[in-house]
Amino acid sequence: MPQNPASAVPVATTGPVRVVGTGLLGASLGLALTAVGVPVQLEDASPGSLALARDIGAGRPAAPGDPEPTLVVVATPPDVAGPVVLAALRAHPGAVVTDVASVKARVAEHVESRGGDDVARYVGSHPMAGRERSGAAAADADLFAGRPWVIVPGPRSRPDAVLAVRTLAVDVGAAPVTLGAQEHDDAVALVSHLPQLAASMVAARLSEAPEAALGLAGQGLRDVTRIAASDPQLWATILTGNAGPVARALRALGEDVATALAALDRAAADGPGAEGSTGPLARVIAAGNTGVARIPGKHGGAPRRYGEVTILVPDEPGELGRLFGEVGEVGVNIEDLHLEHSAGQRVGLATLSVLPAAVAVLETELGRRGWHVVAG
Amino acid sequence: MPQNPASAVPVATTGPVRVVGTGLLGASLGLALTAVGVPVQLEDASPGSLALARDIGAGRPAAPGDPEPTLVVVATPPDVAGPVVLAALRAHPGAVVTDVASVKARVAEHVESRGGDDVARYVGSHPMAGRERSGAAAADADLFAGRPWVIVPGPRSRPDAVLAVRTLAVDVGAAPVTLGAQEHDDAVALVSHLPQLAASMVAARLSEAPEAALGLAGQGLRDVTRIAASDPQLWATILTGNAGPVARALRALGEDVATALAALDRAAADGPGAEGSTGPLARVIAAGNTGVARIPGKHGGAPRRYGEVTILVPDEPGELGRLFGEVGEVGVNIEDLHLEHSAGQRVGLATLSVLPAAVAVLETELGRRGWHVVAG
Repeated sequence: MPQNPASAVPVATTGPVRVVGTGLLGASLGLALTAVGVPVQLEDASPGSLALARDIGAGRPAAPGDPEPTLVVVATPPDVAGPVVLAALRAHPGAVVTDVASVKARVAEHVESRGGDDVARYVGSHPMAGRERSGAAAADADLFAGRPWVIVPGPRSRPDAVLAVRTLAVDVGAAPVTLGAQEHDDAVALVSHLPQLAASMVAARLSEAPEAALGLAGQGLRDVTRIAASDPQLWATILTGNAGPVARALRALGEDVATALAALDRAAADGPGAEGSTGPLARVIAAGNTGVARIPGKHGGAPRRYGEVTILVPDEPGELGRLFGEVGEVGVNIEDLHLEHSAGQRVGLATLSVLPAAVAVLETELGRRGWHVVAG
Repeated sequence: MPQNPASAVPVATTGPVRVVGTGLLGASLGLALTAVGVPVQLEDASPGSLALARDIGAGRPAAPGDPEPTLVVVATPPDVAGPVVLAALRAHPGAVVTDVASVKARVAEHVESRGGDDVARYVGSHPMAGRERSGAAAADADLFAGRPWVIVPGPRSRPDAVLAVRTLAVDVGAAPVTLGAQEHDDAVALVSHLPQLAASMVAARLSEAPEAALGLAGQGLRDVTRIAASDPQLWATILTGNAGPVARALRALGEDVATALAALDRAAADGPGAEGSTGPLARVIAAGNTGVARIPGKHGGAPRRYGEVTILVPDEPGELGRLFGEVGEVGVNIEDLHLEHSAGQRVGLATLSVLPAAVAVLETELGRRGWHVVAG
């Protein structure tokens, strides 16, 4: 029986699985399934993409005479997912069909209005996995490991079809989450599509900034703009495919922009003490406090408080490795960590999050070993 | 001669240094100077704040009969920095006076228009250091280590006054950068104030989101909204104090919001293929690509390409420590790292940035030691 090497749990998907579209998600899925011994048949409209996916080991190109797939995964761009799902339902009358498009209501509506009885074999899904790079060249057998994989059953989806898609998610290491199509689309507008637009719009302001301004960039700017490196065409397709929910979220953000601009214009005209200028700005920041506090912590649980230990680390070969080696010797588990870089100096700050009870022992032991522990 | 323990280089600031305002920046500066043996005199309008700063070791409260300071650092909120600088220039006629307010043009204008000949002893400055927490309780002797410290000489500042402030920055481990006041304010609007507003406005949308939506939160959302946890009152003061430049940057972002909204509304009404809907959205994302590529890499140098090695790490006590210990054994320096958390699963992805030449050896050696190296 195929094994998942990460967890050493037997996988339940038997296959063959047919993957239609060999971009980042399709090729990664092919790699992950191939790694656990599930036969993968690949399809792509582009012979070049198909060959690349084959060459990296994501599966074999589908060929006449192939055994019928038990499961078809449509991993095309979201704007063509609906028609491709319909074609797959017709071409493989014994197979369960899913798609991995990042927008679900439109695909579901397209399939459900045109699919007839075949829709019983269709279940939408969305693995919450991605990276700034795209295409099979960036594919990764572990892309789905530990990520949520949203399962979106339709009103007519057969229970065994839902189970097959859920099993696929589990077999590649993802954590399945069931949501309705509209519920999913509203959620990703807030947690993925709006942050992408905001990051891009902040980064866009840097295009014309003087060099000296960029020299003042700190960790805050780097964090806010990291995802601004994403693919423009792919994102334009995702955003138009979820236009309603994204527009609602962006319109609300635009109202905050208007509120802040009115307050800033008052302050610019009448001085920083201008009546009605600080209140609205403080409320915008305070609303952000409330929102960010709701983001769950590690492992999807409630936000959890860790203690922090910060160490000044000379940026020389082996120093960070030596630090973590010695933390390991002390026997303390690092729950999270944050590296802060220096501008113009060869020193960095490493902040380790550890269980609160471990803070004191770690500070003492690292200090004893000669590390410069920053007073908390 | 006082020593800076981080670098073991003798410090040149002799003091006494008088620190006016014992919040995060003032108390951190007091800690840093005290640590290298420079006498620090503390002032604060609040007896409670003053006592806290004394108790954490940031210096002694100023008292009648104290020796005259050679340098006064005004670390009050930015809205009162101007008057406090003027008072310090008059009270200490032999001292150089600086302030650390995050907005510079307004303070400079206030001081230069009212300070008479005393302005020769005034030099504005801004250490680019901070954290989400505020107040002396969050103070840290290493807060300035490796950060840019902007020096803003006025047209009438004496060269020895500029040197004294520059020396202070170097002595607490910061990297001095000289800019004009307006140049500084325009720069921080782009690299600090606009990102803060955008992060807060994205996070604010989560306040009313259903729990299920928050369960889909990934690293992108966490990065974009990390700084949304900042202090509302402090930020309202900072933003109104730099109202002109922040309004210009926010207005440009607001134009992008309007462009994106128009495209999204077209797509929502006419379907994702609607004419004129994908182009404007792709251009917004592409402009972000251009901007984010200009953010300098580590050490303030040009962005530098590192190779990446990604490892699947079981989230069990000691595993991350063991990994870094073994990276140290292999002799490879970690230039940067990124930890990605799992939702609902006890596994994480650690991505190590290393020199390109070290990628192959690290992958081989870690694989040989039994680590699950993710194919790049």
